[in-house]
Amino acid sequence: MIDCAEGTQVQLRKNKIRFSQINHIFISHLHGDHFYGLIGLISSFSLLNRTSDLHVYGPKGIKEITLLQLKYANAYTGYNLYFHELESKDSVIVYEDDKVLVRTIPLKHRVYTNGYLFEEKTGERKLNMNAVLNHEIEVCYYQNIKNGKNITLDDGTVIDNKELTFDPVAPMRYAFCSDTVYTESYLSLIQDVDVVYHESTFLETEAHLSERTMHCTAKQAAEIALKANAKQLILGHYSTRYDSIELFKQEAETVFPNVELADDGKTFEFSNLVAE
Amino acid sequence: MIDCAEGTQVQLRKNKIRFSQINHIFISHLHGDHFYGLIGLISSFSLLNRTSDLHVYGPKGIKEITLLQLKYANAYTGYNLYFHELESKDSVIVYEDDKVLVRTIPLKHRVYTNGYLFEEKTGERKLNMNAVLNHEIEVCYYQNIKNGKNITLDDGTVIDNKELTFDPVAPMRYAFCSDTVYTESYLSLIQDVDVVYHESTFLETEAHLSERTMHCTAKQAAEIALKANAKQLILGHYSTRYDSIELFKQEAETVFPNVELADDGKTFEFSNLVAE
Repeated sequence: MIDCAEGTQVQLRKNKIRFSQINHIFISHLHGDHFYGLIGLISSFSLLNRTSDLHVYGPKGIKEITLLQLKYANAYTGYNLYFHELESKDSVIVYEDDKVLVRTIPLKHRVYTNGYLFEEKTGERKLNMNAVLNHEIEVCYYQNIKNGKNITLDDGTVIDNKELTFDPVAPMRYAFCSDTVYTESYLSLIQDVDVVYHESTFLETEAHLSERTMHCTAKQAAEIALKANAKQLILGHYSTRYDSIELFKQEAETVFPNVELADDGKTFEFSNLVAE
Repeated sequence: MIDCAEGTQVQLRKNKIRFSQINHIFISHLHGDHFYGLIGLISSFSLLNRTSDLHVYGPKGIKEITLLQLKYANAYTGYNLYFHELESKDSVIVYEDDKVLVRTIPLKHRVYTNGYLFEEKTGERKLNMNAVLNHEIEVCYYQNIKNGKNITLDDGTVIDNKELTFDPVAPMRYAFCSDTVYTESYLSLIQDVDVVYHESTFLETEAHLSERTMHCTAKQAAEIALKANAKQLILGHYSTRYDSIELFKQEAETVFPNVELADDGKTFEFSNLVAE
């Protein structure tokens, strides 16, 4: 999960997302609309008798705040709660497993803030079953082939891996850029991402407010997507002063063609880049 | 306002309660379902450019937690925020003005907890206009009469105040008893209240859980209302394990006749003790 505003647990229940699915929470910064729901979620995990580890990534201070609240509530968790506090102004790797790697995207806001870049790792190559069966290769070799190895047959013939496999599904990269003033400092980091979520708190008509409060306009978010050569832009974090969020889409599309609007409860399927 | 769970500001907006009406917040204890919405409300007050003072009453620790969150958000309030921290195990007066007096009701829960007793002060006596006009008393004496003074006419006759006035509206007393195990220790404090709100987390079928988690059953809440000689009991704080909150009313009514059920967005008019 990325960020956790007040009432997140209510939204999770409303959208029937199982709490037990959440094992890693990435917090961008310590403003209320990005993390005041964390302590409630951590407490609810306890009430639900969670036993699996929970990892929280976020700015220095997040551990002190959370533990102070748990102390006064006399309510320590029945599960292991790990804090990974961030202070670096450079991008750092915060999480890695065999399928995904997560790095920070240093942003510029009124307090220390990071976005997060989620990079899938290249998967196994896919077996070309026709070729594999033609060569009568035994099943026990399949994993080696998927791992990219060539195969030597009993007669000494070497079959090149490329003949036996197809390329794996292209790994996806997703950049989550929360609150930030317009800056090109993180463009190189998110270059060529498949999807960039970018805050767009204001429209250009309020550019002066945007600058002062260190936010972006829809147009600026679109410029980031364009310069990063992203495939798709998802906008969010709209000021409530506007009558319709469609205005953000319209403004962004003057700069960048493929724009979607995040909204409460809306989901996006990244594998084919289509909003549900 | 009494207590402030996560999402309270959402509920306030939903029920069209103006934020500026709230100047005093009484927190019973530092469990999340009673105060995790406080920091969000305090932050929203700032965003709304509040300038009037805000007073928060609650257990020791509430100031430390709130100020730590504001520090890391780099977001101090543009209004004066006063904390009145409580540590006493005896009832103390926490607020008083010319109309109302608020005392703590020491409760017994897993952490230091207080309910709050709101006591209206006796208002002015009401003018008996027929009597006042009969005696041709000038308007400039009306306030003195309302304050209970006798009047000396020009001919020296003294008119007793009781002849010129009716008794004021009887002042109301409201006891808010949040999380507590069953105890009779606060009965004398809330004796003869007009309305007692009392938690009833469980039904008698879960009395063992109630005792262990230091909560009350609906029947126990009704016993408190009965022994306190309250006029009306409002139940709340129901465990979500039950299919219908009507079950709480049914159980309580076996002990005490006048039971109402608190529920999201429901309001009660105390002047005539009728639920709207």
